[in-house]
Amino acid sequence: MNRAKQNPLITVKDIKPTKPYLKVDGVFNCGATKLNNQYILLLRVAESAVSDQDNIHIPIINNHSIEIKTIQKDDIRYDFGDSRTIKLKNGKVKYLTSLSHFRRAFSTDGIHFKIDETPWIFPESELETFGIEDPRITHIEDKYMITYTQASPYGVSVGLIETIDFVSYERKGTILPVDNKDVSIFPEKINNLYYMYHRPVPGDMGYPNMWVATSNDLYHWGNHKLLLSVSENGWDNGRVGGGAPAFKTDKGWVHIYHAATLEDSTYGLGAFLTSIDDPSQITHRSLTPILYPEADYETTGFFKNVVFTCGLIVENQNLLIYYGAADDKICLATITLDELYEKLVKVG
Amino acid sequence: MNRAKQNPLITVKDIKPTKPYLKVDGVFNCGATKLNNQYILLLRVAESAVSDQDNIHIPIINNHSIEIKTIQKDDIRYDFGDSRTIKLKNGKVKYLTSLSHFRRAFSTDGIHFKIDETPWIFPESELETFGIEDPRITHIEDKYMITYTQASPYGVSVGLIETIDFVSYERKGTILPVDNKDVSIFPEKINNLYYMYHRPVPGDMGYPNMWVATSNDLYHWGNHKLLLSVSENGWDNGRVGGGAPAFKTDKGWVHIYHAATLEDSTYGLGAFLTSIDDPSQITHRSLTPILYPEADYETTGFFKNVVFTCGLIVENQNLLIYYGAADDKICLATITLDELYEKLVKVG
Repeated sequence: MNRAKQNPLITVKDIKPTKPYLKVDGVFNCGATKLNNQYILLLRVAESAVSDQDNIHIPIINNHSIEIKTIQKDDIRYDFGDSRTIKLKNGKVKYLTSLSHFRRAFSTDGIHFKIDETPWIFPESELETFGIEDPRITHIEDKYMITYTQASPYGVSVGLIETIDFVSYERKGTILPVDNKDVSIFPEKINNLYYMYHRPVPGDMGYPNMWVATSNDLYHWGNHKLLLSVSENGWDNGRVGGGAPAFKTDKGWVHIYHAATLEDSTYGLGAFLTSIDDPSQITHRSLTPILYPEADYETTGFFKNVVFTCGLIVENQNLLIYYGAADDKICLATITLDELYEKLVKVG
Repeated sequence: MNRAKQNPLITVKDIKPTKPYLKVDGVFNCGATKLNNQYILLLRVAESAVSDQDNIHIPIINNHSIEIKTIQKDDIRYDFGDSRTIKLKNGKVKYLTSLSHFRRAFSTDGIHFKIDETPWIFPESELETFGIEDPRITHIEDKYMITYTQASPYGVSVGLIETIDFVSYERKGTILPVDNKDVSIFPEKINNLYYMYHRPVPGDMGYPNMWVATSNDLYHWGNHKLLLSVSENGWDNGRVGGGAPAFKTDKGWVHIYHAATLEDSTYGLGAFLTSIDDPSQITHRSLTPILYPEADYETTGFFKNVVFTCGLIVENQNLLIYYGAADDKICLATITLDELYEKLVKVG
């Protein structure tokens, strides 16, 4: 793939904190779409509270407002080893270190973005206590459906928000319970059914794999099936999950997904092709990553060695993949459809 | 509650193994209903293969047939500490020690049951590789809906099977993805919506809590909400999950659920009452268990200190709760509705 020479396109320096007492830890994992010839990115902005020498201050949502939790840095009950979380000694995550919300960015060339100075959608419900993350945007029929991760002390669930104009929006509740994330909805009905990919996280048995489900109305989902599972070894042995919403081509549905290693959580991107009539039937896939952390801005950052996409735009047989780099920057990589097809091999 | 003097009603001695090379480890956690004045229990029967001095032989489903996996008892890759599982050293469950299926039992008095000598429903799909477990039966409209746990290397998911006569049946696919279990469907529409309780199992954050969801067609589910969460301390600090399907009373919907301790997985039963118009609004609940492992047949067995229900029958203001004891027997306990109400206190 071709990394944009302007990378990273957006960094924390470009984001104004929501409140004076917050600092921006990252801007990454954005949804992407077009409306009225404008490129729109829906940015995940992660913020923490400014910490002092002895304490970590963590913003959470309580009763629809920001509350600051204070954790002493020498509190022996906690494990601070992962930059993204504060864990109890039994391995359970007690807090996330940052609180994410969604902010809009607009562009006429897909490279230079004008970014809102304030949040567009902020977490508010009990299931969003620890923030809202990783939005995917699907333009379907007359509206844009935004699927996103809701993080809370009860786990990570999947919320749905609708908009027609990226000005006002409507919350449509929780479409999948804990633990699930990486949901993207297909942009049209297939054989009279809506489709989604989702990524449940099992506990004692198995690994985080990609699943497919169908719906008659976009709000109620069923007929869940396993789609793509982790490998025994290699770049995708820890987890696999959906990326940007699939798009239709004359060869079938193309989906760009992510996978990570079990050993060190290095995240790369892969691609697969499904039957045009059935998104649960993968016909071709990439055996090696189509994008893997190599550039400095991908190998260093808030959480190193991550490339992760929630949004892409297809233009003139060219794919613009917007991706989060190292959990704190937004970047762009491009590839033509023909180049992508060359990376896919027949399955089965 | 009043334990039946005939307890345990059904034990492994009453169950003929499915194959000569299998042995019955347990018969427990049964669904319950009535049809044509007969009491019907749908038994979970758990079977393992006869092991020898050096090896454990585990039945699993492969390509719709039983395959026997052989594990050496001194294989240092595995942890054999839990009677129900064989774990890898990293804590992941590699195999279950037994394979469960469903068998029918019929009675005219609710106490003495005639049990099928062969399975009625046997696991068959890839998502049922490790068996089918814990059926709940809801009589709704003109049919019986059986919700059950599908166990596989990919996690535990929720399957749906329909029958009208308990002779033939139809599989209706997976209605909730991994990890989820303890699903029961309400026996009628409420404000034009079907309802279910379910119990997703989150990973890094939070504990197994009860959730509620709605549907227009019984097959596609949405509008997921947290219903009842574990306590900080006490008998319900490890997990809570649904029991038998809720039933309607003049005071609201009554549901009997289970909870277990975090420290030693002791399972007891509790009860709550919801608004008649909204099963997501708990109005009263028991603060202490209504049934807790005390009898010998509850404190000793395949997995000790468990009482767990999937099925009950309401007759003349009297509740017949069929429950699994110590994961290997079926027992009965009764309570009148008035006695149950006395155990409930107003919430909030």
